Amino acid sequence: MADTVSPFNPPQRTLMGPGPSDVSPRVLEALGRPTIGHLDPRFVEMMEEVKGLLQYAFMTENALTMPVSAPGSAGMETCFANLVEPGDKVIVCQNGVFGGRMRENVVRCGGEVVMVEDEWGTVVNPHKVEEALEANPDAKLLAFVHAETSTGAQSDAATLCRLAREHQCLTIVDTVTSLGGTPVKVDEWGADAVYSGTQKCLSCVPGLSPVTFSDRALEVVKNRKTPVQSWFLDLNLVLGYWGSGAQRTYHHTAPVNSLYALHEALRILQEEGLEASWARHELNHQALKAGLEAMGIGFVVKEGDRLPQLNAVTVPEGVDEAAVRKALLEGFNLEIGAGLGALAGRVWRIGLMGHASNRRNVLFCLAALETVLTGMKAPIRKGVAVDAAMAVYS
Amino acid sequence: MADTVSPFNPPQRTLMGPGPSDVSPRVLEALGRPTIGHLDPRFVEMMEEVKGLLQYAFMTENALTMPVSAPGSAGMETCFANLVEPGDKVIVCQNGVFGGRMRENVVRCGGEVVMVEDEWGTVVNPHKVEEALEANPDAKLLAFVHAETSTGAQSDAATLCRLAREHQCLTIVDTVTSLGGTPVKVDEWGADAVYSGTQKCLSCVPGLSPVTFSDRALEVVKNRKTPVQSWFLDLNLVLGYWGSGAQRTYHHTAPVNSLYALHEALRILQEEGLEASWARHELNHQALKAGLEAMGIGFVVKEGDRLPQLNAVTVPEGVDEAAVRKALLEGFNLEIGAGLGALAGRVWRIGLMGHASNRRNVLFCLAALETVLTGMKAPIRKGVAVDAAMAVYS
Repeated sequence: MADTVSPFNPPQRTLMGPGPSDVSPRVLEALGRPTIGHLDPRFVEMMEEVKGLLQYAFMTENALTMPVSAPGSAGMETCFANLVEPGDKVIVCQNGVFGGRMRENVVRCGGEVVMVEDEWGTVVNPHKVEEALEANPDAKLLAFVHAETSTGAQSDAATLCRLAREHQCLTIVDTVTSLGGTPVKVDEWGADAVYSGTQKCLSCVPGLSPVTFSDRALEVVKNRKTPVQSWFLDLNLVLGYWGSGAQRTYHHTAPVNSLYALHEALRILQEEGLEASWARHELNHQALKAGLEAMGIGFVVKEGDRLPQLNAVTVPEGVDEAAVRKALLEGFNLEIGAGLGALAGRVWRIGLMGHASNRRNVLFCLAALETVLTGMKAPIRKGVAVDAAMAVYS
Repeated sequence: MADTVSPFNPPQRTLMGPGPSDVSPRVLEALGRPTIGHLDPRFVEMMEEVKGLLQYAFMTENALTMPVSAPGSAGMETCFANLVEPGDKVIVCQNGVFGGRMRENVVRCGGEVVMVEDEWGTVVNPHKVEEALEANPDAKLLAFVHAETSTGAQSDAATLCRLAREHQCLTIVDTVTSLGGTPVKVDEWGADAVYSGTQKCLSCVPGLSPVTFSDRALEVVKNRKTPVQSWFLDLNLVLGYWGSGAQRTYHHTAPVNSLYALHEALRILQEEGLEASWARHELNHQALKAGLEAMGIGFVVKEGDRLPQLNAVTVPEGVDEAAVRKALLEGFNLEIGAGLGALAGRVWRIGLMGHASNRRNVLFCLAALETVLTGMKAPIRKGVAVDAAMAVYS
C-alpha cells in the first residue's frame, strides 16, 4: 500500500442510537492514560476496584463478577460456552433479535434448544415460560433477554428467574441494555449468569462485557464433564487472572486502557447512585415520549413494558426511514438507530443511555427530528413537541 | 459497595516486558477521540483504511485482513475455530508456551493433534516438520509460532510454509510478537491464516488481534461441513461487518476507540516504513545484547535464531529474579518480563518492541539493571555495559 493515510478525526456526534452512547469526557480522558502492564501490581489493584464497582452495578455479591475482554456478544458466549455441555437442554425465550442469537449459541455448544417465542415488541410471557419449564423437567437452563435492544421491551426478570429456580433451572440473563439504566438486581432476582456491555447505559467505550456468575453457576462450570469449547472464554482459565488469588496467572493480555475507561465510567455511576441514574433515565424517557407523542409518533412496545433507555418508535406513514437517519446524521451530527430484523424499515430506535440521557439531548433530538420530518412533508403535528417535553421537566 | 473509589492514575512505566510495550502519545491521543457509531459511514471509511494498513503490515493482498475485536488469544482462536472441524488432523509445532496453547485450541475444536516438539529456546526444526508431514498425508493444517514470545526464538516461517504447501497443508502462523518488528511476509511465505496482537511491535493498546486469511483458507471456512463453534468469532458472520460490501451488517459492536488507536499506530508504522522499523529493532537489540553480554548475562536462544524485539536472557547465578523485577518496577518504573512455563524463574524477557525499541530505553535498562544487580551483589561485570551498547550505536 503506497498511499499515505491521513489521521482520523471523528466528527462530534450525539449518539442516540442503540449504542454506543455518548461517552463522558472523563471516560475518554481516563482511556488515554499511560498504558501499564496487565500484571503490574498497580493494575491488579485497579482490577479489584473494577470488580467491586461491577458488583455495585449488578447489585450482587457474586465473587465472579468481572469484565470479559471483548464486546457484549462475547459476554453472551462466555455464559453459554461455560454452562452448556453437549446434550444439555436449554429453554430460550425469544422476543427480538437477541433471543435468536442465544439460540445460535446453544446450538453451537451442542445443546438442545426449546424455544419460547413472543411477538417482537412484547415482553417474554411468564405463563409460556412456566409451561415450557413444566413440559421440560430435564431442562438445565432458562435463557432470556431482560432488555431487548432490538425492540425496547423490558421483561420481568424477577418472575422469570423465580420460575426457573422453582424448576431447578439455572438462568442466563442478557442485561446489555439495562445495566445502569433500569434496575438489574442480580442477587434479588437470584439470576445465575448475567452479561452486559459497556457501551450502553454505562456510557463507556465499546469492547468489554461485564459478567457475573452465581456460586451455583460457577460450581456447574467447575464440574463440567467436557472442556469449555472456547479456550479464550473458559472461565476455569480466565479466573486464574481475574480471580481473587494474590498470584495472577497470565491467560490473555487484558485490554488495559479500556479497563481504565470502565473504571472511570463505573465511578461516575457510583457517584450518581443507581437509583438516581434509573430515575434520570425514566424522566428523560417521559420527556422524549411526550414530545414524540405530541408530534404523532407512537411506540412499538405498550406502556409499562418499555425500556426508558431504548425507545423503539414507529416511522410515520410514507416516510423513508433511512433518509431521515441520514439527514439527522449529516445535518445535525445526530445518530439514531434503525430497526433490526423483523422491525427493519418500520421503526427507529432512539437511545437515551447513560451519559446521553439528558435534557439537552431530548430537546435537540425532538427539534432535529421535527425539522427533518417537516422538510420531508411527513404527516406530523408541528410546533408542539418541545413544549410537551418541557412540561415533563417542569 | 459503600466505599468511594478514587480515580486511577497509572504510574508512567517504561514497558520492556513481553508486551504491552510503550504506547506512543499519538496513539493514546487518538484513542481518546470522541466515540462514534460502529455503523457510522465515517467509521466505515476508517475501517477500510485499517484493513489497507494491515495489508501493508502483513505484506499481503489478502482481502480478508482485519482486526478481531479481542486480544491475540482470540485471534489465535479465530484461526483454529474457523479452520478446524471435528476429526481434522492438525500438526502443531511446539517450542514454547504458545505452541501448547495451539494444541489446546485444536483439541477444543475436536481436531486430532500431531505434535512436533522442540526444546524451549530453539526454533521449530523443519526436518521434523517434514517428517511429520510425510507421516501424516491426511493432515489438513500445520500450525506454528513464528516468534515465540515465551523464549525469544524466531522460526523459519518461509521454509515451514513451503513444506506445508508441498504437502497440501494449510498453515496457521502466530506472528503476535513479530508483526512490525521483524519481517512477516504473508504472501511471499504463502501463509494461510496469520494472527497477531496490537500491543507488541505495533505499540498500540492491547485488546485487538489483526488476522489475515488467504483466499484458499477463506474457501475452506466457507465450505465447512459444521458451523464454527464460536458465534462471536465465526468469520462467515464477522465478514458481514468487516467485509467489503457497501452495506455493513451488524454483528457485534466494534471496539470503536481501540480501532482509532490501531489506525494511528499503523499510520506510524507506515510513516517509518517496514524495513526501517525492522532495522531499528535490530540495531537496538544489538546494543542491548552488547551491554548485557559485557555484564556477563547470556541469551537463552542461540545467535541467529533470536528475535530482536524479545530478549530472553539467563538470570545470573544465585539471583532472585522476582526481586530484581520488583526493584526495577518500584525503583525505576521499569517493567521487564518473567520467564513463562519451563523457563519460569530462570530467565528474564526484555522487550524492545515498537515505540519502546529506542536508544533511551536500551541505556536506561542497562543502567537500572546494573544498579539493581550490583545492590544484590550479583556476579556481574560493572561499569562496562553502557559503553558496550554505545559502541554499537556509534
